[in-house]
Amino acid sequence: MKRGMPDMNKKIIIIGSVALDSIKTLYGERKEILGGSATFSSLSASMFNRNVTIVAVIGEDFPKKYLGLISSRGIDLSGLEIVKGGKTFRWAGDYCENPGSPKTIYTHLNVFKDFNPVVPCGMRKTPFVFLANIDPDLQDMVLKQMKSPELVLCDTMNYWIMSKKKALLKLIGKTDIFLLNDGEARMLSGENNIIKAAKFVISRGAKAVIIKQGAHGAMYFTKSSSFSAPAYPLEADVCDPTGAGDTFAGGFMGYISSQRKITETVMRRAICYGTIMASYAVSDFSVNALLKAKRNNVEKRFREFSDFTRF
Amino acid sequence: MKRGMPDMNKKIIIIGSVALDSIKTLYGERKEILGGSATFSSLSASMFNRNVTIVAVIGEDFPKKYLGLISSRGIDLSGLEIVKGGKTFRWAGDYCENPGSPKTIYTHLNVFKDFNPVVPCGMRKTPFVFLANIDPDLQDMVLKQMKSPELVLCDTMNYWIMSKKKALLKLIGKTDIFLLNDGEARMLSGENNIIKAAKFVISRGAKAVIIKQGAHGAMYFTKSSSFSAPAYPLEADVCDPTGAGDTFAGGFMGYISSQRKITETVMRRAICYGTIMASYAVSDFSVNALLKAKRNNVEKRFREFSDFTRF
Repeated sequence: MKRGMPDMNKKIIIIGSVALDSIKTLYGERKEILGGSATFSSLSASMFNRNVTIVAVIGEDFPKKYLGLISSRGIDLSGLEIVKGGKTFRWAGDYCENPGSPKTIYTHLNVFKDFNPVVPCGMRKTPFVFLANIDPDLQDMVLKQMKSPELVLCDTMNYWIMSKKKALLKLIGKTDIFLLNDGEARMLSGENNIIKAAKFVISRGAKAVIIKQGAHGAMYFTKSSSFSAPAYPLEADVCDPTGAGDTFAGGFMGYISSQRKITETVMRRAICYGTIMASYAVSDFSVNALLKAKRNNVEKRFREFSDFTRF
Repeated sequence: MKRGMPDMNKKIIIIGSVALDSIKTLYGERKEILGGSATFSSLSASMFNRNVTIVAVIGEDFPKKYLGLISSRGIDLSGLEIVKGGKTFRWAGDYCENPGSPKTIYTHLNVFKDFNPVVPCGMRKTPFVFLANIDPDLQDMVLKQMKSPELVLCDTMNYWIMSKKKALLKLIGKTDIFLLNDGEARMLSGENNIIKAAKFVISRGAKAVIIKQGAHGAMYFTKSSSFSAPAYPLEADVCDPTGAGDTFAGGFMGYISSQRKITETVMRRAICYGTIMASYAVSDFSVNALLKAKRNNVEKRFREFSDFTRF
């Protein structure tokens, strides 16, 4: 197999949210645009691998055009439950005061309140599992349905660290790679030093931890190695950071799943591809820029990124 | 010449401050300890090159043991003026509230108020010039005394951007590499995007710009290239960040001046050595940890740093 070409045998399954976001940034305001962790991550992963399934829930009010948009990238929606008469998960955030950390205006869980995620029978042997940011109990429910996955990546956020820390700590031990941002890593570990925070996550049973650092890139730690990648140097303004972390994770999983073997180099390159995918996502609202990205431009950015970090 | 060995012919001259700092951090409080931009940068540069001269001013009250400490590293003090009956420059800062940005308790310029820097005659042909953080008018006075230097590095801080912007903008055009942190780059350029901020500095006449990012390392830009280095991953706690930027600059100049030719690779490696030198400085108060650092340990950190960033 040629490096970078999708391997049709290696499937990815993603559990996460499909949402309607209302966003205000310094660059404008948008109401009820396509969002959600499963949306951003699956579209990002589809750049490298067309075998992506999502497990999520929406209400009957979810716009058909958005469904068409997701499935146009070949993403399998057989695990997407549509609740009759239900309302889709909604989130509203305002980035105007602090572009790095939005103020939540509202979170309406709606159909997520009673969500009982079911992995379609034919998908339970999917080798690559991404537990995108969602209630850790739901992440665990999905993981229990999977049959010996090759790689489990698990994301989370400050909300779950505060409200479901115990469940989250238990979940860490069942994942291969745990993903969180620097503030969350400090919050979860109680350590101010980021390396100590990473060691804490590994001590809880994850084989590796990726610490997202927003505009400063990402760090990766295992018991025996560490790696740091900056963010892709974007001269365009960051229009809307929503979904950047999910896009990172999707690109990471997409690239890894397209490779013959998971080596340390593949892991490191996957982090670089993740940050490059995120560089598209943030340059427009919703998934607009992500959908316009072309593989040859991704590879061009990867070469620029290599030069940007080489010494 | 073996790479990394000091070249005895290439001298460095540093204009900056020699100060008495009173510092409060989460790790303790120290009164009237050795500080100043010329102190940190010259000691850091001396790791790579023993031919370092400083041009600075102190009062008669300056402790002899501190002078001995600086000269014990072979630093030439012939350009250090001692003002009879004068009081040494003093700065007091408190890092407790925000470890990334200290609150200034007081700044007593003292002997710096009437400082008229004179480069000793024999030093005016020194090829490597570091205009450390100090009044841009004093930096310019020193630069005017130098005879066709090979490389001029110029640092500054927010205080001068606010109070002497015009002088600073003029100075940029006379320097090869302009050094400032990300907040200062945004303040000076009026650009929020860091790449646009870097381009602004280059448009004002600098051949290159280095943007320090504190715990996130440093970026380097020329008209045709860009480079990013993370900070050295330090598991030890950051005890006192005072002088980290000066130590970075000193390590950068020290390494470059020890190399046969200034190439793009040398520039990039110099940035890495700069961040590594800074990793020592921050782990203790004043220059304590910097003085304990050994060259073989610096090289060990450089190898670790290479592995930390390679993909």
